[in-house]
Amino acid sequence: MTSTEKIEQLRRMAARLRADSLRATTAAGSGHPTTCLSAADLMSALFFHVMRYDPKNPTYAGNDRFVLSKGHAAPILYAAWAEAGAFPTEKLMELRKLGSELEGHPTPRFPGALVATGSLGQGLGIGVGLATASKLLDQAAWRVYVLLGDGEMAEGAVWEAAAFASYYKLDNLVAVVDVNRLGQSQPTMYEHDTSIYARRFAAFGWQAFEIDGHRFEHILDAFDRALKVKGQPAAIIARTLKGKGVSFIENKNGWHGKPVPKDDLERALKELPLDEGNLKFEISNPTAAPAPADPPSARMAPPAYEVGQQVATREAYGTALKKLAAADPRVVALDGDVKNSTFAEVFAQAYPGRFFECFIAEQNMVGASVGLSAAGKIPFASTFACFLSRAYDHIRMAAVSRANLKLMGSHVGVSIGEDGASQMGLEDLAMMRAVAGSTVLYPSDAVAMERLVEQAARTPGIVYLRASRPKTPVLYDNSEEFPIGGSKVLRQSDADAVTVVAAGVTLTEALKAHEELKKEGINLRVIDLYSVKPVDRKTLLAAARSTGNTLLVVEDHYAQGGLGEAVMSAVADDGVRVRQLAVREIPTSGKPAELLDAAGLSARHIVEHARALARDTASARR
Amino acid sequence: MTSTEKIEQLRRMAARLRADSLRATTAAGSGHPTTCLSAADLMSALFFHVMRYDPKNPTYAGNDRFVLSKGHAAPILYAAWAEAGAFPTEKLMELRKLGSELEGHPTPRFPGALVATGSLGQGLGIGVGLATASKLLDQAAWRVYVLLGDGEMAEGAVWEAAAFASYYKLDNLVAVVDVNRLGQSQPTMYEHDTSIYARRFAAFGWQAFEIDGHRFEHILDAFDRALKVKGQPAAIIARTLKGKGVSFIENKNGWHGKPVPKDDLERALKELPLDEGNLKFEISNPTAAPAPADPPSARMAPPAYEVGQQVATREAYGTALKKLAAADPRVVALDGDVKNSTFAEVFAQAYPGRFFECFIAEQNMVGASVGLSAAGKIPFASTFACFLSRAYDHIRMAAVSRANLKLMGSHVGVSIGEDGASQMGLEDLAMMRAVAGSTVLYPSDAVAMERLVEQAARTPGIVYLRASRPKTPVLYDNSEEFPIGGSKVLRQSDADAVTVVAAGVTLTEALKAHEELKKEGINLRVIDLYSVKPVDRKTLLAAARSTGNTLLVVEDHYAQGGLGEAVMSAVADDGVRVRQLAVREIPTSGKPAELLDAAGLSARHIVEHARALARDTASARR
Repeated sequence: MTSTEKIEQLRRMAARLRADSLRATTAAGSGHPTTCLSAADLMSALFFHVMRYDPKNPTYAGNDRFVLSKGHAAPILYAAWAEAGAFPTEKLMELRKLGSELEGHPTPRFPGALVATGSLGQGLGIGVGLATASKLLDQAAWRVYVLLGDGEMAEGAVWEAAAFASYYKLDNLVAVVDVNRLGQSQPTMYEHDTSIYARRFAAFGWQAFEIDGHRFEHILDAFDRALKVKGQPAAIIARTLKGKGVSFIENKNGWHGKPVPKDDLERALKELPLDEGNLKFEISNPTAAPAPADPPSARMAPPAYEVGQQVATREAYGTALKKLAAADPRVVALDGDVKNSTFAEVFAQAYPGRFFECFIAEQNMVGASVGLSAAGKIPFASTFACFLSRAYDHIRMAAVSRANLKLMGSHVGVSIGEDGASQMGLEDLAMMRAVAGSTVLYPSDAVAMERLVEQAARTPGIVYLRASRPKTPVLYDNSEEFPIGGSKVLRQSDADAVTVVAAGVTLTEALKAHEELKKEGINLRVIDLYSVKPVDRKTLLAAARSTGNTLLVVEDHYAQGGLGEAVMSAVADDGVRVRQLAVREIPTSGKPAELLDAAGLSARHIVEHARALARDTASARR
Repeated sequence: MTSTEKIEQLRRMAARLRADSLRATTAAGSGHPTTCLSAADLMSALFFHVMRYDPKNPTYAGNDRFVLSKGHAAPILYAAWAEAGAFPTEKLMELRKLGSELEGHPTPRFPGALVATGSLGQGLGIGVGLATASKLLDQAAWRVYVLLGDGEMAEGAVWEAAAFASYYKLDNLVAVVDVNRLGQSQPTMYEHDTSIYARRFAAFGWQAFEIDGHRFEHILDAFDRALKVKGQPAAIIARTLKGKGVSFIENKNGWHGKPVPKDDLERALKELPLDEGNLKFEISNPTAAPAPADPPSARMAPPAYEVGQQVATREAYGTALKKLAAADPRVVALDGDVKNSTFAEVFAQAYPGRFFECFIAEQNMVGASVGLSAAGKIPFASTFACFLSRAYDHIRMAAVSRANLKLMGSHVGVSIGEDGASQMGLEDLAMMRAVAGSTVLYPSDAVAMERLVEQAARTPGIVYLRASRPKTPVLYDNSEEFPIGGSKVLRQSDADAVTVVAAGVTLTEALKAHEELKKEGINLRVIDLYSVKPVDRKTLLAAARSTGNTLLVVEDHYAQGGLGEAVMSAVADDGVRVRQLAVREIPTSGKPAELLDAAGLSARHIVEHARALARDTASARR
């Protein structure tokens, strides 16, 4: 085929992608056809000229990867796969219907979408993770293409990803920006001034090309040139028209997220240069799939601590991660310039090629992790727990992406001490428990942390590990097992008056309270609730039943959404009485012990509350 | 004073600021002296030459404003105010002690800090909000200076703020970047290459100046030039040395967040050109304080709906906000390019000068709101509830800042329908309840929304309003009042078998279930829990006591941290049985009614569960 013939084929294909997008959204009665139409020529070029992949096997490991960052253009993503032959185009009419894989925004329920998108500004970070996996981990040949909208260029996460990509010289990554000028509610900040985006990409270390996104000569030339860029990523800034090809919606405000009415559909389709003939296109074969990672060892080396030894759980995290890396080659780690505090540096020093310093850019750290996960890695990303809140939208979307993402948040609660409230993780349990399908773990000693790091790697999906700053005594024998969904009854007798449920620093305080109360003849049952989600309802319920139908929960976290409410949620249907000690006011600077006491979480407070509850129980029994 | 004399004074002052920072952190036994030392010359210039303010009145409304974005340099902020005369320098030795205003990172407990900082990358957004208040709202003369670290330039939020500042031509804003080369755990991405930062600022529409941050000739010249920049903000990129002035810590890795040991302190101080003589400095007088806004009217116009009318609560939000704006001139609004969905456009059309389109940059929307709040405005910021998660770290810090911030999140839950999970707010209640001191409101009809918008403006601190996408019937008379912490018992009889607690779309379903069950002779009590935090424990408890000690909570939110756990938390200490219907799996696309039913939240499901609970209650009574 000559270049002219090729372009004619691509133009005809673009018309089909436009028609598919219009038909599907009109049938659905909702959706975003105009944003599909602006991207149609770029998509035609990508799927039918540029990318190397097997349309019959969208998840083949040697395929070039495509991320639709502007997720509301989902219909044209589905159309491209259908026209490429992945499935019959008739299925496109199921768009947005209950049960269909063709959702309003892409999710991995559709095999042609590696990840979920639709919260704007996240695609480039995911692309960065994918490109990292291909180039820096697997030394593979597959490349990564990310299609962004101009509106989402306002999201800071895009620039975090841009900085990471040039820093790590990801020349297997191409960003394509569909500058269609119109946002949802008004024109974008810079409308059609593509030079602004080009300058910004250049300032962030990229090679940038400005093109007319509806001229195939420009498009193909730009992709050719992008391919030749070495040592840095490439960006193609394409001037386009929203609604391109249909006069009554083209480049008009007020058409975001609106399908063409049924009665106007035929009129719209007639304006496209549609033809029903066969198209000749050749999709380039995928690259050879990278060799799969060696299977993980049966088991990582067991913990090697002594009961009573003082070890911070964050420190045990670093030790565990290094051991885990030895056992499983898929494990990689990321950190946000606090690796000397999270002890991710232990991993980084042992496996520098599998560690990625993300600097102070938590959104991109999580976004890149989602990309790494989509390439089959098991990413462990760590920072202070409070700073994971920076990436909450990314974590939420990671759940929709069904990402296999492990997060470690250190420096939780008031027990960090003098640094003050800005550095304290006090909302992290609430935030992470509310993530769909997440597992939330809160080890109280070094042995538990090691075992739970291993469990995290084995548990699919998003797993959160909560780690404390202060050193605390090792409580468990090295052979102790910590199944997800379990708990440990650390103190127990036949005559327990009250049950305390705790984890982390409050477990230490609860054990002190136990000793204190023993002197008064009050037996305190003490439960280590290391698995916050799922939670061990059976053990909690049994304990409540033997201690006056009452549980006392003590947590170094705000009162909402944390340990206390996890416990309530487990036993609420059983009418168990739950009393909660938690952080209720914004803490200040101070010594850890002072702050624990000021927040009402120290042994002294536990003793007081337990004593009062024991009295209630006793009088109820009388 | 000649310029040379002036510089000599500033140099001596910088030495004092260095000494103060070293002494205070060594006394505290923790803290970040080296990051203070790199900034000392910049701080000396800012506080003793550039800024116009009243050191005896740090909160005077005519002062130039200073935001310490690199919050870990707190000791030098305190030192600057002390040396300026705000308080005795002896007090600096209380740094980081329990009860002291001089916390490890700044909070507004210290009057010289307008806001809390310490989560990096947030200061510029706050500065943008302040500069907006001064220039665009109050037409005031005070200017805004933000000191950033180089490490935090990796945060996307910085670039969101940078884009906003140039878009709105904030030429009263100066960013100063202290490029000290060293992050916490290793060198920064670009070390001493200040040209990269300068190019990025320029690409984002700023005038940028590169200087040696330890040469006062450079520093003063740069501030002079920054002052003259018109129509765009200015950035001063200052090459500095971390630990500058003390040879054994200067420009050395491994000294982040470490005080000089006691035994080395004298040695360190001796290296500074310290002298005990008096310094002659004149701080320029502050600008005239802008006229305070007119006092708010006694009351905004009442709602004007008819019971049964179909109105989406998000639509009522727009109407209410416009009315509120008429009643209170301090009210301003911000939105993230979804104003036609949140109905913030109603406000924007009526009060274009008090509305700020933040485009798709939610972190900056919240950051700017915190700045506006610090300037005495009452900002209402709106977007889809799910996208507020993008700004969770900013919201968390807004609480530490004691910001008067109102957030509206629309499009909550599965009831948005076809757009799918990426657009559904399903974690927002968990997230917002866990914010310290927050108020969380979930109006179920248009009347409630209007009344609660008014309540939000009157309630200090962070108030979250949750709004639904679908139209729902107006339930209340226009005269109905909705006090914070209250609830409404919508259906009630002397023979209620079960209580359902709901809000938003699930309240509509609960009312349908009530009708359904009435036919079977089962009386359902129905509570509208419009105030999720604080929650109406008294009404919930009374209802539980009259309906078998049981409550059935139904919520269009994930099971963790939302309405259900708010209810559990209220009644857990009373041993009330709570059963919860909530979203438990990642939803897909589909029609709202289909998705509500698939998630187990529709009237049909409420009927089933209520029937079962009624049976339990009846058998318990037998």
